Amino acid sequence: MKDVVAGIDIGGTNTIFGLVDKEGNVLAENRLKTTDYPEINNYVSALANAINILIKENPGLNLVAIGIGAPNANYNKGTIELAPNLAWKGIVPLAEFIRGKINVRVTVTNDANAAAMGEMIFGGAKKMKDFIMLTLGTGLGSGIVVNGELVYGHTGFAGELGHMIIVQGGRDCGCGRQGCYETYASASGLVRTVINLLSEMREDSSLRDIPTSQLTSKKIAEAAAKNDPIALEAMDFTAEMLAFGIVNIISFSSPEAVFLFGGLAQAGEALFAPVRKYVDQNVMPIFKGTVKILPSVISENNTAVLGAAALAWNELK
Amino acid sequence: MKDVVAGIDIGGTNTIFGLVDKEGNVLAENRLKTTDYPEINNYVSALANAINILIKENPGLNLVAIGIGAPNANYNKGTIELAPNLAWKGIVPLAEFIRGKINVRVTVTNDANAAAMGEMIFGGAKKMKDFIMLTLGTGLGSGIVVNGELVYGHTGFAGELGHMIIVQGGRDCGCGRQGCYETYASASGLVRTVINLLSEMREDSSLRDIPTSQLTSKKIAEAAAKNDPIALEAMDFTAEMLAFGIVNIISFSSPEAVFLFGGLAQAGEALFAPVRKYVDQNVMPIFKGTVKILPSVISENNTAVLGAAALAWNELK
Repeated sequence: MKDVVAGIDIGGTNTIFGLVDKEGNVLAENRLKTTDYPEINNYVSALANAINILIKENPGLNLVAIGIGAPNANYNKGTIELAPNLAWKGIVPLAEFIRGKINVRVTVTNDANAAAMGEMIFGGAKKMKDFIMLTLGTGLGSGIVVNGELVYGHTGFAGELGHMIIVQGGRDCGCGRQGCYETYASASGLVRTVINLLSEMREDSSLRDIPTSQLTSKKIAEAAAKNDPIALEAMDFTAEMLAFGIVNIISFSSPEAVFLFGGLAQAGEALFAPVRKYVDQNVMPIFKGTVKILPSVISENNTAVLGAAALAWNELK
Repeated sequence: MKDVVAGIDIGGTNTIFGLVDKEGNVLAENRLKTTDYPEINNYVSALANAINILIKENPGLNLVAIGIGAPNANYNKGTIELAPNLAWKGIVPLAEFIRGKINVRVTVTNDANAAAMGEMIFGGAKKMKDFIMLTLGTGLGSGIVVNGELVYGHTGFAGELGHMIIVQGGRDCGCGRQGCYETYASASGLVRTVINLLSEMREDSSLRDIPTSQLTSKKIAEAAAKNDPIALEAMDFTAEMLAFGIVNIISFSSPEAVFLFGGLAQAGEALFAPVRKYVDQNVMPIFKGTVKILPSVISENNTAVLGAAALAWNELK
């Protein structure tokens, strides 16, 4: 029998889960629609059932633990709390519910923490004890590793770097405050910057022919690749703001590397080159040259499942 | 024989050292003038000699380790590096030098980290695993404890929260950059705020009769106690900026408490009350009510020696 863990990625729309061995091979994978189960009890039953089926279909595998990445997940308590994009309201004791169906160790954390764990166990941070993962999607998620351990903090919710305020009185944020890092340094932050520049700048731009509600980071990156002046300026400003947050993160925990991941990071060198330049220009002198800015090496498709699986394997150490 | 450690606080002017037992009692203490020894070898000899004398004068004590708090100290390497206020230039392998004279474990860190360690081992953070120490003197020093351990980071220099940039393009900082936290939230930051308000506001103030080079946080706190409008406004603004940094710190590591210490913290409730108010107003909703803002309970006199001793005791655990 080969030991495996189940890595589960709970998204607002889909739940993807896979059986993952200690080397990070995803041996079997399946999914179910999160939105089909507005009742948490039905969801837990369906998920446990689907995992049991996957194990039966793959003889020779022995399930030893479950790791879950989910929005608003609290590692300390094993709960999902007040997640705006999930149907289950209030505080959901998810780890306890799942353990009631499948009696193995169940660990829960948010998706960015899971991505950091995946990078540490299976990816580019294998030999690192201090690094940061920034996931640049609609928002900015973060996982912080210090002394080889994820930082959960007193509440279990540590690592909300997307909500560091980097501009006092700045852009409105979904958290109800203003000027949060993610309102500038994320895919949606890039879109907001383009919209602002459409008013500030006078240059021609193909982006002027797209309704602002239809602008995406992908379209902007494509325009930048064609030397669109507004797209280029927006990429540069976004890189500067991203670097600005990284500089403050370095003053805090002095990591060996900052990994960038997610939609915006797919812009590649168009993003990484100016981010490195601005970090180098603005970092405190004693930290100059001490931090690598790197792309995540975990493949985009499997990140969430691998991260959740890494979380489970790490608990067994 | 009773086991003791030597706690050594190296300042630009004086070096204070004491023999401290496991309960945090300072059983003997002495000092020497740091400035008397511009040559590091002479300093190390004099210090080792003075410690040996202290032990001989106090029979029954068995020295088991040495802890040192010093500016620009690197825990990972046991060095003092490029310290602007010390005569010894370049990179000084202090731990190694001292171990050459007294053959026990020698550990080095900066003074704010030592203060955090003192609070954890002997003070108000005894049962805490996640907390932050901010020392509000001429600058803003910080010690960060995560999962019960001081954060040193990849370089050994982590915890430079005084150099988080909180205002882009803000006040000039001694580190060569602009807008650092300590240019607002420190004793000298308070003085700079008063000077700014002397130009911005038109109200009468006793502070207008003091040359700006003579302004101190103590004089400003005294004026505030007499309801001086500029002093009051400056205290409020300083508390707001201090809280602003704390709010970002909370998003990072979600501590159980933030301890304030040093000259500015001696203003007491005149500082703590508005800091708590602004933290509560500006913290991310999921962290609301989760963080205590507390005065350090280690007595001002012994903090540095006790912190360095705590560092040594912690290494022996």
